[in-house]
Amino acid sequence: MISPVNLSEKFRLFHETWHPKIVGEVNDMYVKLAKLQGEFVWHRHEEEDEMFLVVKGTLQIRMRDQDLTVREGEFVVIPHGVDHMPVAAQEVQVLLLEPKAPKHTGNVVTDQTVSDLEWI
Amino acid sequence: MISPVNLSEKFRLFHETWHPKIVGEVNDMYVKLAKLQGEFVWHRHEEEDEMFLVVKGTLQIRMRDQDLTVREGEFVVIPHGVDHMPVAAQEVQVLLLEPKAPKHTGNVVTDQTVSDLEWI
Repeated sequence: MISPVNLSEKFRLFHETWHPKIVGEVNDMYVKLAKLQGEFVWHRHEEEDEMFLVVKGTLQIRMRDQDLTVREGEFVVIPHGVDHMPVAAQEVQVLLLEPKAPKHTGNVVTDQTVSDLEWI
Repeated sequence: MISPVNLSEKFRLFHETWHPKIVGEVNDMYVKLAKLQGEFVWHRHEEEDEMFLVVKGTLQIRMRDQDLTVREGEFVVIPHGVDHMPVAAQEVQVLLLEPKAPKHTGNVVTDQTVSDLEWI
């Protein structure tokens, strides 16, 4: 059986920040949900573009040559190879789309790197 | 420059139904927006999964062995090879995610097949 995924219900299932959860797959990509608060680490994905769709809150994305503000109901695609640092002054809920392969911290491994991605 | 894409603003740019518009790309997939109203054609995508995220309204998706209701704030992934027919009793706004390759009517070519996908 195929079931729809309700974003609000899924977001109620976890509280950790910077710890994406898998909620779907579309061919070779995962659909993930994450709660973000505070600053993440500067990183880039060498080969994978990454889509951030803001479901709740306002996300800042710092890049080397520009800063972005992504509001509720907006998305942005960070192309592969582009250094970026997500920043959330207050909690932000995002839907992420990225290839199944990469670590979410891209080329950098830090305390914020999550290696045990789980389905919820 | 990288710019966020505002879904509401993009939806205001077109009125045609069953005519997806490209608003982004993430590696080998397109992010598309579409307005749906009425019945689409039964079809399947032989190799490509397809994600429907309902931004506004309520989408019905008929399949051979079940019917789905996908509400605002919900998404569903129709796996490749699965016959499906989207139905929208009233206008529905959806964000679609699918590989760049396929026609949106999959294995079927009808009057509803759009071959000139355009960016907005």
